[in-house]
Amino acid sequence: MSSEAPDHAAENALVIFTPSGKRGRFPLGTPVLTVARQLGVDLDSVCGGRGICSKCQITPGYGEFSKHGVTVQADALSEWNSVEERYKSKRGLIDGRRLGCQAKVMGDVVIDVPPESQVHKQVIRKSATERVIAMDPATRLLYVEVAEPDMHEPTGDFERLAIALRDQWQVADVSADLALMRRLQPALRKGDWKVTVALHQGNHDATPRILDIWPGFYEGSIYGLAIDLGSTTIAAHLCDLKDGRVLASSGLMNPQIRFGEDLMSRVSYVMMNPGGDVEMTRTVREAINGLASAIATEAGIHPRQIYEAVFVCNPVMHHLLLGIDPVELGQAPFALATSGSLSLDARELDLANLNASARVYILPCIAGHVGADAAAVALSEQPNKSDDMVLIVDVGTNAEILLGNKTRVLACSSPTGPAFEGAQISSGQRAAPGAIERVEIDPVTKEPRFRVIGSDLWSDDPGFAEATATSGITGICGSGIIEAVAEMRMAGLLDPGGLIGSPEQTGTWRTTPEGRTHSYVLHDGTADGGPRILVTQGDIRAIQLAKSALYAGARLLMDEMGVDKVDRVTLAGAFGAHISPKHAMVLGMIPDAPLNKVTSAGNAAGTGARIALCNVAARNQIEATVHEIHKVETAIEPKFQEHFVNANAIPHAVDPFPELSLIVTLPVVSFNTSGSGGADGRRRRRG
Amino acid sequence: MSSEAPDHAAENALVIFTPSGKRGRFPLGTPVLTVARQLGVDLDSVCGGRGICSKCQITPGYGEFSKHGVTVQADALSEWNSVEERYKSKRGLIDGRRLGCQAKVMGDVVIDVPPESQVHKQVIRKSATERVIAMDPATRLLYVEVAEPDMHEPTGDFERLAIALRDQWQVADVSADLALMRRLQPALRKGDWKVTVALHQGNHDATPRILDIWPGFYEGSIYGLAIDLGSTTIAAHLCDLKDGRVLASSGLMNPQIRFGEDLMSRVSYVMMNPGGDVEMTRTVREAINGLASAIATEAGIHPRQIYEAVFVCNPVMHHLLLGIDPVELGQAPFALATSGSLSLDARELDLANLNASARVYILPCIAGHVGADAAAVALSEQPNKSDDMVLIVDVGTNAEILLGNKTRVLACSSPTGPAFEGAQISSGQRAAPGAIERVEIDPVTKEPRFRVIGSDLWSDDPGFAEATATSGITGICGSGIIEAVAEMRMAGLLDPGGLIGSPEQTGTWRTTPEGRTHSYVLHDGTADGGPRILVTQGDIRAIQLAKSALYAGARLLMDEMGVDKVDRVTLAGAFGAHISPKHAMVLGMIPDAPLNKVTSAGNAAGTGARIALCNVAARNQIEATVHEIHKVETAIEPKFQEHFVNANAIPHAVDPFPELSLIVTLPVVSFNTSGSGGADGRRRRRG
Repeated sequence: MSSEAPDHAAENALVIFTPSGKRGRFPLGTPVLTVARQLGVDLDSVCGGRGICSKCQITPGYGEFSKHGVTVQADALSEWNSVEERYKSKRGLIDGRRLGCQAKVMGDVVIDVPPESQVHKQVIRKSATERVIAMDPATRLLYVEVAEPDMHEPTGDFERLAIALRDQWQVADVSADLALMRRLQPALRKGDWKVTVALHQGNHDATPRILDIWPGFYEGSIYGLAIDLGSTTIAAHLCDLKDGRVLASSGLMNPQIRFGEDLMSRVSYVMMNPGGDVEMTRTVREAINGLASAIATEAGIHPRQIYEAVFVCNPVMHHLLLGIDPVELGQAPFALATSGSLSLDARELDLANLNASARVYILPCIAGHVGADAAAVALSEQPNKSDDMVLIVDVGTNAEILLGNKTRVLACSSPTGPAFEGAQISSGQRAAPGAIERVEIDPVTKEPRFRVIGSDLWSDDPGFAEATATSGITGICGSGIIEAVAEMRMAGLLDPGGLIGSPEQTGTWRTTPEGRTHSYVLHDGTADGGPRILVTQGDIRAIQLAKSALYAGARLLMDEMGVDKVDRVTLAGAFGAHISPKHAMVLGMIPDAPLNKVTSAGNAAGTGARIALCNVAARNQIEATVHEIHKVETAIEPKFQEHFVNANAIPHAVDPFPELSLIVTLPVVSFNTSGSGGADGRRRRRG
Repeated sequence: MSSEAPDHAAENALVIFTPSGKRGRFPLGTPVLTVARQLGVDLDSVCGGRGICSKCQITPGYGEFSKHGVTVQADALSEWNSVEERYKSKRGLIDGRRLGCQAKVMGDVVIDVPPESQVHKQVIRKSATERVIAMDPATRLLYVEVAEPDMHEPTGDFERLAIALRDQWQVADVSADLALMRRLQPALRKGDWKVTVALHQGNHDATPRILDIWPGFYEGSIYGLAIDLGSTTIAAHLCDLKDGRVLASSGLMNPQIRFGEDLMSRVSYVMMNPGGDVEMTRTVREAINGLASAIATEAGIHPRQIYEAVFVCNPVMHHLLLGIDPVELGQAPFALATSGSLSLDARELDLANLNASARVYILPCIAGHVGADAAAVALSEQPNKSDDMVLIVDVGTNAEILLGNKTRVLACSSPTGPAFEGAQISSGQRAAPGAIERVEIDPVTKEPRFRVIGSDLWSDDPGFAEATATSGITGICGSGIIEAVAEMRMAGLLDPGGLIGSPEQTGTWRTTPEGRTHSYVLHDGTADGGPRILVTQGDIRAIQLAKSALYAGARLLMDEMGVDKVDRVTLAGAFGAHISPKHAMVLGMIPDAPLNKVTSAGNAAGTGARIALCNVAARNQIEATVHEIHKVETAIEPKFQEHFVNANAIPHAVDPFPELSLIVTLPVVSFNTSGSGGADGRRRRRG
């Protein structure tokens, strides 16, 4: 390659790539793929230029070249050849496309690399800050041609495969476990010494390892799981490791809740029942195994096609997943057994449903109360790169709270309990079809309307009954209970202390006596054999405790940071639909902020897990970042208790944002199995 | 440290270490251990200078210093202190010894480091070439003091342990498996943040891994196994990983012989019985597991104290141990699945009786027919460092043959069958107490006398019956059958073709008819209820086939090397007593050579395994060496068949070395469970 010169070198042609703009001069006859590699142009190839994989498709820019003031030759690329013809006849090829490994440069030419031929395809994550995940997965497919054995120059088949990977893919010093060694010789012979391998290379210069091998060119895909392992819920994304596409998202309740609803009750369970941690470890691993199979079935793949899983979780779940007694996490100084990231074999975690060679990556923990889930939120939301002061709240059974900007980031964890996830709520359920996820209550008539997961219709829209006939109306999920309580307050059904008024006080039969307190009848399906869905006084108290803990944590970080307000707030939750910023503020979950500065980020921890799954460099990034995040310990801070007590009331008696006729929740990556959670609007104006 | 100067620096003392001779000037008050470290003197310390481990004992050379022409100060070291006093009162300390971590340099002094305080203790291996194994094991014990957790600077306990190992032992980036992580927190707290770890660091810059942890200073030892996994026999040494001492040596028959006596019949078994390799793998792993327990019991330790095992084996056993189908090894081009060395977890090989975190190292193979056992022989006998042309023959079911010098080394494997190991011999048995291991036959009377394993007496010595009463006389082992056949030839009982003469021809009732041929009655114990031990015509034929194969392999290498004679011969055998060089030459097992140039090396492959167990640098060395060894393939070489046919006769009809009244077999490392095999002599002269 020579640099561009005004006079054309005799036998060199000028090649310009779009969209990268990279350019150089090359001898006539050089294949386009070779040119791309030498220029560092992002042009994919799995088969290494053998006309098999078709990943290197390019579009020669005939006719457009004149824009650059250079005459375009009609024969700027070599003629369409038999390899391309065979590929097109067998698999199809868009008109005008060429295979970069076959087409040779025969004159000055502009070559466009379409997005699907780029290795680092950019997957746009639609959120408040349109951000991009560049694909750079730890596990990928590579096609290689291996030298045949020679009796007189004896080396093992594996050693010759390793040399082929080094020479053809610049992957040095590969390893493989014994299970792969067992399958190596038949695969090489069946593929006539051509094979495709699934190669895993973790971060920290980890030894590359061959996880799987197929004879010849493997047409299939390999998949990964991004798992947010929460105290109450386990949420997973199944991703294609080639392009990051989410094939399915699913979740289930953490079966450990039978040992204790919150983390400290699980730690207590171990203290009271020696060996209880072993039981909990087994339980959660079985659940993850089942979830892996279920999500694979949903996506129409086999769970054996899952080669990698990334976990984010709080410290107690982290230890229980790993099989480490969490008892030290229950008492000061809350020492983690290990805080660093972990790279493991899936079989070490008994995840037998995944591929037998599957790998696991677990994000680092920040501290004994601030786990890998908080690290994942930091990876997803990047407070350390924010110009303005951002408060990020990830709502779960423990809330992970981050506050900061590019100068400094603080983190804490606040024990909100499982109410925000629909647990400990009388009609609560996890976010699944049939769960009420949005609620409005008319401040005049006190009548509610709602939406359930699985339908975009409101309960007073025509066709709602038909649309929800399959799922029924089964309960109320986390985002639903937040909205219900906030709406009840704004409709005058609650006093500032959270007490539900009697029918005489509220003027509606829906606040009906239940023992010594009142409940609000959100929906009565008993006529159709369905449940009666109430918001009880106990539900209000549970939400008050949860939101006070959340608020107190945020305030504690603000005290530590020395700020009295934040520039923006990001609300995230592991499960269910997105939390409504307005209702969160009505409840007093978060400090007041301009509504357009409060965004909902879906499952930020899960998104962080997905980023780490799709991009191995992101693992290095978050491992470095966690060392810069300063942890604030809520458990021993007297001011936390003070803030907690002060935050009990529900501050806003009226809609604090009546001027907004439409509140847009931006579309985000959703962990909701129903696939809902896209853009939605409020259609009624109230004041 | 400053260099020695003619005029003494004001506050510096001259310190000279023996036996290394290293010297330097140091400030008064510097601890001897610090001085030793700065000078690179080999002075051990496990506790890192805390007066706990007593490994750093030294002897100050008062009074001897005048030899160096320097005045000795009576107070050249600081005074005996309370730490030393406590140690001496609790554990004892040889008079005159000091602890190097406590004694400080106070004046010019000569300090002797006794052998037991040297890290790289030199274990003399007594053989023809007195060679030394420097201890540098992959697994060692380290004592560390770990920082306590701090809530405000949160890091995991493991991460603080890793920092302690880095700072106190210069071991960076340690890892640990989940089982260790589980035990970490209790051990740290029980030891009050002081622990001893068993740290494994393999070759090739492998990540150091913590295999075990104990609270406080661990007084115990850790052990390793060196295993020679042969087709017919499995031999193991149990070694202390601190000093290389062999605590016990043991062995058993390879239970795979029920699937086929030799390697090719086992490969055939797999071809005929799909899944047969799985069965054979399970069988051999169970046997190794059992052997590990037995040898540990014999040595009075628990097999869980075994943290490492090194394996050497031929290629078929290599694959069957690893669980790889060996079928490719049965046909040209004899491709190994993998030829490189392997570092594995013992649990990957189902070696469940060892420590749960134990590691396994398997030496590299040279080629499809020349395995890790040949590599081990090369490591032990080092033909590549020999000035003269040496032939090394390792006798087993396959003989590994090496020929060469520092210029070039050739290797081949020859299918001798199991006869040399006592298998396929009518009265054959493995080398164990009761087995006949040495035989002499009087050429005049044709009467035999013999020795059995477990006694140093000959059968015609007084007290022999009493000495062998416990074991009995049960059969004949490999070295015994070699001597018996050679002695029969020299006594005129065999013709050159190997036919046993009739009583009429030989003049002794001991050559007695058995069917259509004759047998020689070596011992008749039937009167006492014991066996009748015969050498049958079939036994002679089996030995002839075996020795012809061995000889043909050696000749093939000599052809390839272009030499007609060799300067010296080393005879090695995996099992039983040492092969008698004279009898080997009488039989025609090896080319003729001066008898004083033929030495017996015991189990050279096993010694190679032990070297690799005790010295991690030796692993790098043999991995490099195998690439320089040129393999000759016997299976496809027509000249091998030619040599084989020509070698059938038994060449020497009379003792070729009658002038020697005493043949000394040099004492070597013995794999014989009886502990015999030391120097022994021939007491009769015959001519």
